[in-house]
Formats: sequence, C-alpha cells, structure tokens
Amino acid sequence: MPDRVFALNGPNLNLLGQRQPEIYGAATLADVERECAALCGELGLALEFRQSNHEGVLVDWVQEARGAAKAIVINPGAFTHTSVALLDALNAFDGPVIEVHISNVHKREDFRRHSYVSLRADGVIAGCGTDGYGLALRRVANLLARP
Amino acid sequence: MPDRVFALNGPNLNLLGQRQPEIYGAATLADVERECAALCGELGLALEFRQSNHEGVLVDWVQEARGAAKAIVINPGAFTHTSVALLDALNAFDGPVIEVHISNVHKREDFRRHSYVSLRADGVIAGCGTDGYGLALRRVANLLARP
Amino acid sequence: MPDRVFALNGPNLNLLGQRQPEIYGAATLADVERECAALCGELGLALEFRQSNHEGVLVDWVQEARGAAKAIVINPGAFTHTSVALLDALNAFDGPVIEVHISNVHKREDFRRHSYVSLRADGVIAGCGTDGYGLALRRVANLLARP
Amino acid sequence: MPDRVFALNGPNLNLLGQRQPEIYGAATLADVERECAALCGELGLALEFRQSNHEGVLVDWVQEARGAAKAIVINPGAFTHTSVALLDALNAFDGPVIEVHISNVHKREDFRRHSYVSLRADGVIAGCGTDGYGLALRRVANLLARP
Amino acid sequence: MPDRVFALNGPNLNLLGQRQPEIYGAATLADVERECAALCGELGLALEFRQSNHEGVLVDWVQEARGAAKAIVINPGAFTHTSVALLDALNAFDGPVIEVHISNVHKREDFRRHSYVSLRADGVIAGCGTDGYGLALRRVANLLARP
Amino acid sequence: MPDRVFALNGPNLNLLGQRQPEIYGAATLADVERECAALCGELGLALEFRQSNHEGVLVDWVQEARGAAKAIVINPGAFTHTSVALLDALNAFDGPVIEVHISNVHKREDFRRHSYVSLRADGVIAGCGTDGYGLALRRVANLLARP
Amino acid sequence: MPDRVFALNGPNLNLLGQRQPEIYGAATLADVERECAALCGELGLALEFRQSNHEGVLVDWVQEARGAAKAIVINPGAFTHTSVALLDALNAFDGPVIEVHISNVHKREDFRRHSYVSLRADGVIAGCGTDGYGLALRRVANLLARP
Amino acid sequence: MPDRVFALNGPNLNLLGQRQPEIYGAATLADVERECAALCGELGLALEFRQSNHEGVLVDWVQEARGAAKAIVINPGAFTHTSVALLDALNAFDGPVIEVHISNVHKREDFRRHSYVSLRADGVIAGCGTDGYGLALRRVANLLARP
Amino acid sequence: MPDRVFALNGPNLNLLGQRQPEIYGAATLADVERECAALCGELGLALEFRQSNHEGVLVDWVQEARGAAKAIVINPGAFTHTSVALLDALNAFDGPVIEVHISNVHKREDFRRHSYVSLRADGVIAGCGTDGYGLALRRVANLLARP
Amino acid sequence: MPDRVFALNGPNLNLLGQRQPEIYGAATLADVERECAALCGELGLALEFRQSNHEGVLVDWVQEARGAAKAIVINPGAFTHTSVALLDALNAFDGPVIEVHISNVHKREDFRRHSYVSLRADGVIAGCGTDGYGLALRRVANLLARP
Amino acid sequence: MPDRVFALNGPNLNLLGQRQPEIYGAATLADVERECAALCGELGLALEFRQSNHEGVLVDWVQEARGAAKAIVINPGAFTHTSVALLDALNAFDGPVIEVHISNVHKREDFRRHSYVSLRADGVIAGCGTDGYGLALRRVANLLARP
Amino acid sequence: MPDRVFALNGPNLNLLGQRQPEIYGAATLADVERECAALCGELGLALEFRQSNHEGVLVDWVQEARGAAKAIVINPGAFTHTSVALLDALNAFDGPVIEVHISNVHKREDFRRHSYVSLRADGVIAGCGTDGYGLALRRVANLLARP
Repeated sequence: MPDRVFALNGPNLNLLGQRQPEIYGAATLADVERECAALCGELGLALEFRQSNHEGVLVDWVQEARGAAKAIVINPGAFTHTSVALLDALNAFDGPVIEVHISNVHKREDFRRHSYVSLRADGVIAGCGTDGYGLALRRVANLLARP
Repeated sequence: MPDRVFALNGPNLNLLGQRQPEIYGAATLADVERECAALCGELGLALEFRQSNHEGVLVDWVQEARGAAKAIVINPGAFTHTSVALLDALNAFDGPVIEVHISNVHKREDFRRHSYVSLRADGVIAGCGTDGYGLALRRVANLLARP
Repeated sequence: MPDRVFALNGPNLNLLGQRQPEIYGAATLADVERECAALCGELGLALEFRQSNHEGVLVDWVQEARGAAKAIVINPGAFTHTSVALLDALNAFDGPVIEVHISNVHKREDFRRHSYVSLRADGVIAGCGTDGYGLALRRVANLLARP
Repeated sequence: MPDRVFALNGPNLNLLGQRQPEIYGAATLADVERECAALCGELGLALEFRQSNHEGVLVDWVQEARGAAKAIVINPGAFTHTSVALLDALNAFDGPVIEVHISNVHKREDFRRHSYVSLRADGVIAGCGTDGYGLALRRVANLLARP
Repeated sequence: MPDRVFALNGPNLNLLGQRQPEIYGAATLADVERECAALCGELGLALEFRQSNHEGVLVDWVQEARGAAKAIVINPGAFTHTSVALLDALNAFDGPVIEVHISNVHKREDFRRHSYVSLRADGVIAGCGTDGYGLALRRVANLLARP
Repeated sequence: MPDRVFALNGPNLNLLGQRQPEIYGAATLADVERECAALCGELGLALEFRQSNHEGVLVDWVQEARGAAKAIVINPGAFTHTSVALLDALNAFDGPVIEVHISNVHKREDFRRHSYVSLRADGVIAGCGTDGYGLALRRVANLLARP
Repeated sequence: MPDRVFALNGPNLNLLGQRQPEIYGAATLADVERECAALCGELGLALEFRQSNHEGVLVDWVQEARGAAKAIVINPGAFTHTSVALLDALNAFDGPVIEVHISNVHKREDFRRHSYVSLRADGVIAGCGTDGYGLALRRVANLLARP
Repeated sequence: MPDRVFALNGPNLNLLGQRQPEIYGAATLADVERECAALCGELGLALEFRQSNHEGVLVDWVQEARGAAKAIVINPGAFTHTSVALLDALNAFDGPVIEVHISNVHKREDFRRHSYVSLRADGVIAGCGTDGYGLALRRVANLLARP
Repeated sequence: MPDRVFALNGPNLNLLGQRQPEIYGAATLADVERECAALCGELGLALEFRQSNHEGVLVDWVQEARGAAKAIVINPGAFTHTSVALLDALNAFDGPVIEVHISNVHKREDFRRHSYVSLRADGVIAGCGTDGYGLALRRVANLLARP
Repeated sequence: MPDRVFALNGPNLNLLGQRQPEIYGAATLADVERECAALCGELGLALEFRQSNHEGVLVDWVQEARGAAKAIVINPGAFTHTSVALLDALNAFDGPVIEVHISNVHKREDFRRHSYVSLRADGVIAGCGTDGYGLALRRVANLLARP
Repeated sequence: MPDRVFALNGPNLNLLGQRQPEIYGAATLADVERECAALCGELGLALEFRQSNHEGVLVDWVQEARGAAKAIVINPGAFTHTSVALLDALNAFDGPVIEVHISNVHKREDFRRHSYVSLRADGVIAGCGTDGYGLALRRVANLLARP
Repeated sequence: MPDRVFALNGPNLNLLGQRQPEIYGAATLADVERECAALCGELGLALEFRQSNHEGVLVDWVQEARGAAKAIVINPGAFTHTSVALLDALNAFDGPVIEVHISNVHKREDFRRHSYVSLRADGVIAGCGTDGYGLALRRVANLLARP
C-alpha cells in the first residue's frame, strides 16, 4: 500500500490562478492537485490534498495526519507568518514536513520573511512556483524510501 | 546543444561528507557532482560544477556565467549571510538563479536566517539535504523549457 | 441597481454597546447597521452588514466580495493587528477598501498601532466613534461615483 | 448554587499526554478535566471544561462566559502569543481570569515569552505542569470567597 | 452664531494639485477650502481655513484657537511626524481635534507611519483624498451637536 | 522527618502590607509566613522563611539551601529583573524552584516583564496575591511526593 | 557691570499657568520672569528673558548670545526632543548652558526622555517646577564667579 | 523642630575629590556634607548625610527614611542605572525625592542615560557639580514650605 | 541666459568660519558664496545663494525654486536629520538636487548619519569641506549640459 | 614629480556600463579610467587605477599605497557595507581618502546605507554618477595643494 | 619587596568544583588560589586572593586596592554583566586590570556577552578554564616589569 | 614528535609594529613569530605561523589544519567580526582553538564587540598585547597535555 502524504494549503490559496498571477502564476489549485496526484502515482505515494482559510481547520488536519499520513507537504499561506498553533501541531507530528511557498517570500514585505513553520519543517522550498509542490513530493519520496 | 548551467558552491562545501555529517549527510561533494551530472543528462542540461572558499572567485564565476550559462544553481555556504558582492554579481546575471542550502538554515543560529542571495534568487531550496541540488536543477529545466 | 457594499466586522464587535462604553460608545452593532442602511439608502448603495469572531469566516467573506460587491468597509477589530490572511484576501479584491476603527488606536497599546489591513486599505478612519462607518460609506459613494 | 467557572483550553491541548510528554507530562486532557472537576467539588465551584483548536470558538466561549460564569481559567496554548482577539474578549469579561501554562514558557523560544492574555489576566501560573489548573482553581475559589 | 472651526494645513499643502497629483489628487487647496466652506454652511459651522510652511506659525494658530474655536481639523503635513511642539499646543486645546491626511500614510515610507498629532487627536482620517476634510467636518459637527 | 523548604524573599518585601496595598494587599510578611507555616504543617514540609534587601545575602541563602533544603520558593522582588548572581546560585541548586510574584508583573512597567530567575525556575506564579506562596508550596509538595 | 544671562523659553511656554496646571503649576511665564529678575539682582546678574514658538527664532537668539551673554539658561520645551539646530547653535556658544524642564520629563512619554540639548548643556534641572529657573541661575552665578 | 532630610550617596562617591577630578571636581564628600549642613542650617532643615557602596544598605536607609525624614536627596551613583530595588524602596516613600548627579550623565556612556530612580524622583539635577546637592536642598525646602 | 541654481544653506551655517573651525574650516559663508559665484561664472550658471535658520523659510525657498531654478544645491545643516517638510518640498521640485555637508557626517554622532534629504537628493557630497559646494555645482553643470 | 593617487575599485565595477545602466550609467570602467587620467594630467597628479573582485587584493593594494601614494580614491562597491578589513587597512594609511559611489546609496536597500569605509574616509561622494571620480580627484588635488 | 596583586572573585565562585563541573571544571577555588600563589612566587608577585557574593564588598576591595596593589585580576562572575558600580570602582584604580572568565562567555546566554568590566579592563581572558588566572598573572607580571 | 600548532593571523596583522603603535605596540609580526617559536620550543610544540589578508586563504589553512595540527591559535583580525566562512571552517576542526586579539576589542567601536570566531573558540584572549599569543600557546600546551 502506498505511503499516504497530506498536502495542506492555507488561506487564499483557493484563489490560485485568479489572484496576482504575476506573482502566483496562472495554474489553479485544482491544476496543482492534478499534477501532484499524477506525480504521486509515479512516486508510489497516496495524496490527500486540501485547502482551508481557517487556521483551526488546518490545525485539525495536521493532528489528523498524526495517525493517517507518513509525511506532510504544507503551503501555510499567510499562516506561515502568524500561526504558532500550526507550528505546535506540526511539532506533534513525527514524519517529514516540507514547507512550500509559490513565490520567493524573501523578496517581499519584511513580515513575510519570518516563518513559524520553518522552525519545524525539515525542508523549505520557496519561489519555485507551483513546481514547488512536485519538488517537495520528490523529497518526501526520497526520505520515505531511506528509513 | 544542451543549455549550460553553473552549479557553484561556497566555502567549506569541499568538506561535505567529512564535516558534521549529522547536519550535512555522508555524501561528498564529488558524489553530489556525479548525481547532478547524471540528472542533467536526463534533463538535457550541461553542468559546470565548481567550489571555492574565496568570495572573489565566486564573484568571478558568476560574472563568467553572464555569457556562458543559462542558469545558476548556487549554494553560497557562509557567503549567503555576508556577501553583498555575490548579490551584486548575481544581480548582473539575467537567467534563473536557484539558491540551495543542504540544511534548514531557519532552524540554526539567528545569523543564518538572513540571506543576501535570496534577495536576487528566483527560488530557494533549504533543508532537503543534497537532494536540494537535484530539485534545483529540475526547476531550472522547467524554467528554461518555458520561455 | 445600487452598487453593493460589504461592511464587515471582526471579533468582539458583536459586544458593541456592552463592552467598555467609555471607549466604544453606547450604540450596539444593530444600531450601527440600522444607521448604515439608512445612509446607504440616501447614497444609493446596497449594504451587506456582517460580523464574525472567526478570522477564516472574514477571509471567506472578503473572497465572496470579489464577485459580489463594489467596495468593502471593514472594521477588522483585533485582526487588524494580527491577520496577514485578511490582508492577502483584501489584496485579491479590486475595489475600494475603507478601514474603520471606532476608537483612536494610536492612543492605545503599542501593538494596536500596527495594522496589516492598512497596507491594503485605500482609506483609514479611526477614532470617529461609530460615525466612522458612515464617513467610510460616504467616501465609498464618492469613489464609486467618479470612475 | 455553586459559582460556575469556565476552564478553556487552546489549540493542541487535546493532544495532552500524547505530544512531547517530556515537556507536557503523561496526563491527558480528560485526566486533567477529571481532577479539576473533583477539586471544584471540594471548593464549591461548578466546572465547565472545554478545548478548541479554533481561535474564533475560544472568543465565542469567553463571550458566553460573560453571563454564564464567575471566573475563567484559561490555557490559551499557542494563542497566548498571537491572539489579540482573545485579549479583547477577556477585556469584556468582568470576573477573575487566571492564565495557566503547563510548561515554563520563559525557558522556551523567545516568541513564547510574550503573552497577550497576561495583559488582562489577574494571575498567571506557568511551569507547574497540569497541577497548574488546580492551583488556578484554588486561587479562583479564594477570590470569589472574598468579594 | 455658528461654532467656529479652525482648519489648519501644514507645510507644502499650498502645492496641492501641483505636486504628485497621483498621490494627492488634482484639487488645489483653494478648491478644498471652497468645498469645506460650503459644507460648513450646511453643517452650521464657521470655517477658518489656513496654511503655513512654518511650524511656529501653526503652533501660534493652535494657541489662538484656544479662545477662538470650538474644534480643530488639522492636516499637519510633514509636521505630523516631527513636531512635538504641535502636539503640545494641541494638548492645550480643549475641544475636538480631527487629524486629516490626504494619502494613506500607512502605505508610504516607514517614517510616515508615526504621528505625534495622533497622540492627541480624537479622530484620524487618512487616505480619503481631499474628501477627508469634509468627513472630518461632519464628525466635528456631530461631536459639537452632542455635548 | 519532613522535607525542608526555603521560602526566600527579596528587597522591600519586608514592607508588605504597608507599601502600595492596592497592588500588594494588606497582609504583612509575618502574616504570609504564618499562613505558609500552617500550610507546610498540612503538607508535611518544614518551612524556613527569610527576607533580605541584600542581593549577596540572598545568594548566600540559596547556596546554603544546597545541602539544607529539598526545594526553594522564592519571591526575588526587584532582583527578579536585575540579578544574574541569583540565577547562577539557583543554577547550582538541584531541587525544584518555584518563583512567586504577588502582583501580575506582566501588567506593570516593561522592565518588570523580564525575569532572570525564570530562566531557572521550574514554575512561576504571578498575580495571585499572597495566595501565590501557598500555591507554590502545594506544587513543591506534589513534586517532592513524586520522585 | 553685571554678567548678562539669556533665559530662553521654547514653544508653548507662553501658556504657562494656563495649560495642564497639574503638570506645570499655576505661575505664569511673567511670574517666572519676575522671580528670575529678582534673583538675578541678588546674584549680580543681568537677565534677558524671552520666549518663542519658532525654532528659528530660538536659534537666532542663541547665536545672538554668542557676543551678548556670559551664560544661557534654556527651557527648550518641545524642541528639547526634536531640534538638532538648537543643539548646533548651542555648540557654537562658549559659556555655561543650563537646561531646565519644569516637569520631570523622565516620568512622561518615551519620546520626552531624549534631549538633544543635553548633549551640549553643562547642567540639566528637571522636575523642580518653576523653581528650576532659579536653581539654574544660582548654578550660573557660581560658575561665573569661579573662572 | 526642623524637618529632617536624608541625603544618601551611592557607590564610589566616598572617592569624591580623588577619582577623575576633571569629571567630579576636587571637593571631597566630607566637603559636600559640610556645605550641605551649613545650607540646611540656613533653610531650617536637619540633614542626615550618608554614603554606602552596598545596594542593600541604601535600600535599608530609604526604608528607614519612611518614618524618619520628610524628604530624600539621593545621588545613587552607579545604582541609578541598575537598581530596581532602590526604585521600589523609593516608591514606598511618600515625601519629595530629588535625584542628584554631579556630572551630566547625558553626555557620557549610553548606559548612563537610563535612570530607574528618575521613574520615582520628583526632580532631577545633573551636571551642576557638587552645587547640585545645595540646589536639591533648596528645592526640598521650597516643597516642604508649601504643603 | 545662464541656468539658475539655488544654493540653500540651513541653520547655523551663517556662523561658518567662526564656529568649530577644526570641523568646518576657516572660510566664512560669504567666502563660500564668492567662490561659488566665481565658479558659476565659469560653468555658465547663475547663482542664488541664501541661508536661513528657519525651516519654514527653507521650505518657502525650495517651493520658489520650482519655477525659478533648474537645480538646487542644498546644505540643510541640522535640518538634514529632522525635516520631513524639507524632503517633501524637494520632492515637489523636478530638477537635480545635490546635498552638501562640509564635514563627514558619517564620522560624527549617530543621529547625524540619517538624512531625510538624501531620500530625494540625486547626489550627496560630504566631508569635502567648503570645496563640496564647488563639486556640487560642477555636477549640476554636467547634469544640465546633458539633457 | 606629480603626487601619486590610487583609485581603487571593488567587486563588480568591472561590469560598469554593462550592468543596470539605469543605475550605473553607460560608461565603462575603462572610460572612467581614461577620464580620470586626463583630469589627473590637468591637476598634476599621477593616477594608478585598479579594480578587483577580491577583498584581500584590495587590502593588499591599500597597504601598498602606504608608501606609494599620497591619497586614495576608493569605490569599494559591495565591500563598502561588509569589509572591516578594508576599513582597517585604510586606518593604516595616512593621506586623504575619498570614498565614491556612483549611485546614491541612501536611496537603495537599507543595508547599503551603512559604510565601514565612511568611518575612515575624509570625504564621501555618492550619487554623482561616474562624475564622482573626477570630483574626488579635484578634492584630492586641493587637499594635497594645501599642506 | 614584591608587587602586590589583588585577585578578586565574584558571586558563586566559592562553589567552584561543585557546581556544573562540565562548564567550570573540578578544581575548587582553594585549588586555584594555591596554584596562583605558587605562580606568583615564581613571578615575584605577592597575591591577595578573595571571593565575595556581595557587590558592595567587591567595590570596597577594589577601592582598597587603590593604595594597596599594583594590579587587579578579577573574575567578576555574574557582576560582569550587571555591575556599573564595579566598573566605576575599577575606573578609579590606576594599575593594570585583567578580567578572567573560566568559561567562554561568548558561547552562553546572550546576556553573558556584555561585560561592564571589559569597558575598563586592559585585558580579558575567557574560556581558558582555571588556567585563565595564571595567564592573567603572567600578563600582569609582564606589564609591571615594563614600566 | 612535538604536537603541531597553527598560529594564523588575519588581515593587516602584517602591518604590526607600523600601524597605530599606541594600540598594537611596537613589535612586528616577525618579532611575535620569533617569541612564539621560542616558547613553543619550551612547551614541546611545533609552530606553524602564517598571515594573510585573504579570507579564502585563511579558510584554506584552517581546513589544512584538520589533518595537520592538534590546535589552532588564531588572531582573525577584521574577519573576527565578519567571517562566517571562518567560523564554519573552525567548526570542522576538532582540536582546541584559542582566539587572540592584541587590543581589548570591547573598548573599541561597537562592531568590534561581536566575534563569529568566539562562537567556536574554546578560549578568547584580548587586550594582552602581543603577550596574548604566548598565553594562548601556554593554554594549548596545557590542554594537549591533559587528554
């Protein structure tokens, strides 16, 4: 049975492809999910792909992942910079965590340079557009393959 | 003819595999080069892989890349945090730049959280071990494929 | 058909008139809604007036406004100071945004001086009591009247 | 009729006993509730014990306490450090508020040293493990006994 | 006899309509005065409208207002950020003070985010263009009408 | 033989009941000692209760506790914020240390928010009035009872 | 011929006795001048006592003092905190400079704690009410008497 | 019977006249005491003049002053910048407190610009040499004369 | 007709040659004006050379330059560090602006390192003594010569 | 024999004319050298003009200048902001040092506002384009002419 | 007669060998004194070796050294970071002062990086274990040998 | 065979004895090498003594020391404050590292107080002049003698 991976998306990522395409590109979140699912097929992973604008829901999902997934790929959106709750939930998860940002957050406003999630993440991939999801899944596959 | 990519490595990366393997892993820089070259073969890229402990040499190489390469993958090592000269050289380069860090710099000392190179890099990949080089090359291949 | 305006209220504004009346005045939120609706009638605007204690709900409503409203008047309450998610949602909205605070936030605790919402808002009205809502709607009407 | 006390718990406290037991101990939140209820019996208090991962829900509960409880014992978890909304809701509550942290937050990451809730709390008890809840309830009982 | 209101303008506002129209709009200060005077007629207020590039003159005028006006509307221009003298003069005035900024100062340089005047002002209206003067006068009228 | 506990009090606590009773309450330090001794009787602890205005004397006492006591309850008063010497002495003590503050230091001047002692203390109890001493002793009793 | 002393007063000190008497006392600036003149008579000094709301005027007067006075007593009012021009003018004056503040500026807002004038003043007297002027003149007399 | 005034001196002031005379002058502390006693005779005050290098002793003396003196003149020396204990003791004293510094602390190292004692002192006199003691006593006499 | 250039001097520059000659040199402002006029003759520029201690006057002059001059050379003196009003006036001027400081401000007090004027100036010349004026005029001549 | 002047250029200045011409202009470094040499001829100076991307080489050259040159004109490029080594080398040089920046560094990123070299430089010329070199040489000529 | 040297030790150094031996080593303070005395014999110095937990006592001893010793070796322990009084006392001592820390304070908590004593000390030796005392005495001997 | 020790010197130390002798003394680096070699003879160590102005060369040498030396004595000069590369190289070296500064860096400019090298060094010796090298070698000898 393939290892299960949660790919979690934070607030406003449901607008992907509609909002500021010069920053975030033209692909929608459904497009991203489709590409990720295809790649997971190749990599022998089972994908669970979700999005929420609610911090509490994301915390619930990370907690759910504790029994249900081997790894988490997370694009926390704005919660990257503000959510200690998400950090604490991830701290209670044992497997690999890869943080993804579509844009290069280091080139934007100062407050976007600080990430609570990075204090727990194993890897961080930023500014690789929606390719970042796929790169994160590849890293997850490698990590799960080498116990 | 394949697109040429420079993969540049900063100070102390020549010690890879020997120094603090719990942080940096057991692969040597030669191992990394070998894996990158193989992947470049697959991706249709031509790899130029170098390392130096000298900031000036890295600046020279980035300048050399202006005419000679389509993209730069760079692990600036300690110069990440201290070299405005490297940033300025990269600012004079037109193609994609992907910054790679083997460890998750965000979990280490405070001074490792600031990167001058990130102010120019298109993408940043940290904490994915030596896999990070391969992920960066994949992103480069995608970017060069979509003009 | 009149232009539709969303007037959105953040956490604890449902307590208006009950909590710290020396700061926030004696009018309840229902009173404010009534006055705003009357004024919108005069100004030829259609008012949608809502309140939530949940950041995610406010983000949902701002996203909903993208297709449904010409302008947003928002009193983000405590989320003013902490919600990047709300800022990002507002960044994805194209029309005028007026931020309202009942009290003069600049005279209160230091952490109330910083507003993420102000980084997007076109106008900011603070310390004008519940009159601030009406002033904001007047500004909205003027802006919508001069394309 | 016994005075009613709300004991409110923030995000990830539902994982108590499962997550980082070297920091938080082996007791579950259900264990804590049981001990608190027993002690409340002794102290002549009626306990309402709840947990949520959602900031908005906690704000709702604090508002509910305005009419329904004489005192609040609150372990805000991660919201301690980030929620002005919770502070504002507590500012609208008239009775005693005791803030509890299981670990000594002062010995942990810098960002855990700042508490918005402490700006309103009457008392703060940290680093006394799950005993902290009982100590808080004792303080509440004393305060309610001396009007 | 109508209540007298001073509307005071700080340095460079005499250039209104000529300088950076993309920020400040095309109306001149004379246009603004004319609109304010008209509105004051409606609101039953008597307007005294002045501008100076000299901090000392503005301090003199605020002192003069102590006996001569019921309220002050002030756009302190650059003195907003640098003049403690103006703050002290306003502290010696008893009636309502409304601070107006034509642009949204929160979106501009960092040093424009701090206002000494806001430490005394009752209300602050920013980013509403030259409409801000009228909104301020409406608020003044409301305040003077409810003693 | 009962376990011995040192309860140490820093500068100006000898004025308890006389100084700023709206902050510190009406009980004198002798009253507090009497209540603590009674509670220790109940809890099976032997109390050593002392006060000094001299940092060096407090350091001497903490050093004395190394052989002579199982736990320390300490209200360091003003030395909380300024004494690294006290921190170092406590670092050389092996048993539980509970820090007590009568007022909620987090609501007072900024410099009272930082505690050197908290960097060593196991637990911190603030703002529970003189009840804080008793709560601290209860925690000590629990800790000594579970080796 | 008696030594001449300039006593210079900054903005809003002309309101002395009228503004915030709980901070500044009931004496007017004319009262202060009268008392200072009387004391100067005793001390063998000739007093020149002036006030202005204009920074430039104060700079002019300090420059005038270069040839015309042996010492300067200055209450810079708000310019204390903001005027480098005044500091530079005083730096060009050779005799003793005593800075006076009626209130204890150290107990007020943070921005009142910094004084540019103190970087040049020989002595600083704050919080001694209008007595401060007399104390400053006594100090001046002593300094001029001991060359 | 004359009002009693405590004049308290902090660490190293016993070296007055011997240490850095270019900063502190040539008068010894005994000289200062003699001059102060003479002036107190004139002013109808009874002087108690003391010095200690021990913070705890100074705290003891301030506490002793609570019953025994009408006012305190204090030159806290180095404890100015470091002693919260002294501030707390002074906070428990009801009469006037005048802080004296022989040199102008504002012109020296940065850490000498902050005074805990100034947060309580009614008046502060700095940079007036040993004259500062006499000026402080004059102010005390005036304050005690106007109840 | 030669291009007109305004050379504006801020507070205390009228003391040039008299004040701190070790920093500012022995030339007076009249000497500087004479040298500048001579050089302008050579360069084909018409010089308008002025000085004021009043910020408002300098703002007036910069506004006057809008129609009357092609370029501004400005030594803002102390207003460099404190005048946002001057910056705003310069922002409303379209031609080249060169900022001159006689001394090297970077080697002096910290507060002299920040310049509001530099945020608008095209060029900045510091520490070249009174030669700086001539260098600035040369630069202006070059800029006006190459449209 | 003409006085010898070293004109030293830091990293990336060899790209002058090729990199970001909107900031740095179209002249190449060879053009600049040619113009400087011509001007030196006029001024009676002998020019030694060099560039390096290597901090160590620049340090070597500054040391070499100790015996070999009367003055240094230096455009340290990125090393301006990061090289204490260069500052120390310049501190060991006795003649005039003029620092040149082609762009106005004060209008760019924050980290470009700090210059280690300015702590030693006698003069600083920024934002005058490549004219800055010539202006610096003129200042050098004046300084060497007036011993 | 041999030159006399004071070796002074601050708070908690009497616990040497007992407290945190992994940081401070196994030698007791008596061992250190013995080794120092032996070395002083070799070097022709007379040693006075003392320890106190009381800041005031250390100040007294430094003052005593003024007449009685040619040099001071001081390990101020925790007072390093907090005692301006000790700095002031050392400022009044004329001979060489060498500051010793057993551990490398730069690798520990942030607050241990700042030393008031270093602002006066001629030399500082840290992290050389108890060898540091001997190294300091050697330096003292060299300094006293070369007047 | 004697243990080999590398003594490495950073930029500008080749100027020792020539530059700022009031800070660095009159001995040249060759003198220091000679004294160190003699002492190493006594201590049974083999000395390798080098200097470079190039950061990269120093990194190379530290890497070379990994196989070739038992300990490193390093005076990093200006790289102390700026070189993370040197820190990283030293982190890859296993033996003792002693950092030497000739002057007391704590008494100089602020930026000289921070040392990257101290984060790795076992011991730090500053302000002991060129004696510091010998003291460092003695410490090294002791450490190597006690395995």
